[in-house]
Amino acid sequence: MGEVKHLCLVRFKEGVVVEDVLKGMADLVAEMDMVKSFEWGQDVLNQEMLTQGFTHVFSLTFASADDLAAYMGHEKHAAFAATFMAALEKVVVVDFPVVIAKPPPPACSI
Amino acid sequence: MGEVKHLCLVRFKEGVVVEDVLKGMADLVAEMDMVKSFEWGQDVLNQEMLTQGFTHVFSLTFASADDLAAYMGHEKHAAFAATFMAALEKVVVVDFPVVIAKPPPPACSI
Repeated sequence: MGEVKHLCLVRFKEGVVVEDVLKGMADLVAEMDMVKSFEWGQDVLNQEMLTQGFTHVFSLTFASADDLAAYMGHEKHAAFAATFMAALEKVVVVDFPVVIAKPPPPACSI
Repeated sequence: MGEVKHLCLVRFKEGVVVEDVLKGMADLVAEMDMVKSFEWGQDVLNQEMLTQGFTHVFSLTFASADDLAAYMGHEKHAAFAATFMAALEKVVVVDFPVVIAKPPPPACSI
């Protein structure tokens, strides 16, 4: 088994200060060693028919399903998740083992 | 500007042979040099409340917004997209510049 991703697509409620939510997430992830990497982004497509109203993507990568389970079960995640979910108008979450069909070019070689 | 991702969450129509769709996508991406990398995965969370019924994730990474635009505007993409969309019961697509909040450990060092 390779990496596992925990992916959230969200739309925030009106009035939510997205920067504050992002800071909370970045702080949490920084201190959680089992999170291998964390990236996010804001949609620039802006086509309601395709985005279904979702505006932000958050993607956490774990080295294994065990690491993901450890993160999901951690009390600090639970505390953050409660705040996070309360800020959302809509959300989709999927967890999936990553299948690399076309690998990126190597960043460096030994 | 860094990388840009083109992310699709989908649920296939009943009866669709997912392996065939995947093969078509992998073949397309393999011959499109402007696609830097392509990964996909099948949800293992299986919690309808969180997944909203979406079952698969497809993620294409581009070195720039220009490369993404070149891909989206390519006739081979248009041909594939028509087949792909016809196979879907539901879909969400978002395009976003990637913000790396916690970088992965380096794969190698020089």
